[in-house]
Amino acid sequence: MIFVTSNQHKFEEAKIIIPWLERYNMDLIEPQDSIELIAMYKAIYAYSKIKKPLIVEDTGLFLDALNGFPGEYSVWLYKKIGCKGILDLLKDKDNRNGVMRTVIAYIDDKGIRLFEGKLRVTISNYERGKGFGFDPILIPEGEQFTLAENPEFKFQYSHRAIAFKNLRRFLEDENRQ
Amino acid sequence: MIFVTSNQHKFEEAKIIIPWLERYNMDLIEPQDSIELIAMYKAIYAYSKIKKPLIVEDTGLFLDALNGFPGEYSVWLYKKIGCKGILDLLKDKDNRNGVMRTVIAYIDDKGIRLFEGKLRVTISNYERGKGFGFDPILIPEGEQFTLAENPEFKFQYSHRAIAFKNLRRFLEDENRQ
Repeated sequence: MIFVTSNQHKFEEAKIIIPWLERYNMDLIEPQDSIELIAMYKAIYAYSKIKKPLIVEDTGLFLDALNGFPGEYSVWLYKKIGCKGILDLLKDKDNRNGVMRTVIAYIDDKGIRLFEGKLRVTISNYERGKGFGFDPILIPEGEQFTLAENPEFKFQYSHRAIAFKNLRRFLEDENRQ
Repeated sequence: MIFVTSNQHKFEEAKIIIPWLERYNMDLIEPQDSIELIAMYKAIYAYSKIKKPLIVEDTGLFLDALNGFPGEYSVWLYKKIGCKGILDLLKDKDNRNGVMRTVIAYIDDKGIRLFEGKLRVTISNYERGKGFGFDPILIPEGEQFTLAENPEFKFQYSHRAIAFKNLRRFLEDENRQ
């Protein structure tokens, strides 16, 4: 277990209680990083304003042929160049596979819990169906239709649906509603 | 349960899975707030660099007569004006009581968990004993000596000791070391 602190005194006190602690000396400021971390940042900011248990989520499309791009930049890319941008980027690629990932951050006075949902997808050759975000070009692995063409599938089995099901199970177990 | 998002689509999808969700529309940036939130921010930043389970902590002295001051500014106040600053601030106050609070943020790939320790204290009239931080002026409620004079007490029963004991119990339960 690592204790991050620039304060040797605090570390020594802590080590009395937890002898296997290791110190990592670092001044702490702010990052730009994975969707998990972005979700956690957003959760904390929201909680600082709202002061009640809440969740936030972050979702990204991670393409195999593009080294995981656009990933945490998916929203930004979508706003600028839309589904067409993805189709253009894959124009000369054989591998059109990737994964959609949703991370939910639940925050309350005990901290933050993350819930994830993933969906393996193939990018279609053109936009099919009207839908939100990348849905018109996302074909779930083993399926024939895009998420935009098959919303029933989407609402039950997509990356976001899975993440929220995981959260729901947690809330029910803990009797939090 | 509140879902913080500026995106109506995502909210509608989420609500299919968790019907009792409520939407809170907000653009998310960064706060300056309680020691819990500071601890969570620091934890996330550290985790983004280190990528291994870790903890950070934040501690504050919250004085009854000063509306909780210096609280989350305790480190900053201590660095500038030390124990003497607190003694000066309380010079004409009858109520010299307050609470020391430590919050530990534990972060791993599941999120963040907070562990707290509190100690009710009375501020002594002058510095007694050599010690770290405010220890020379902190007399635990019902005790006679300052934490600086009585380190044995401090290491077992102080705000920080309590917080780390809570963390330890968690780590042992979960078999995390």
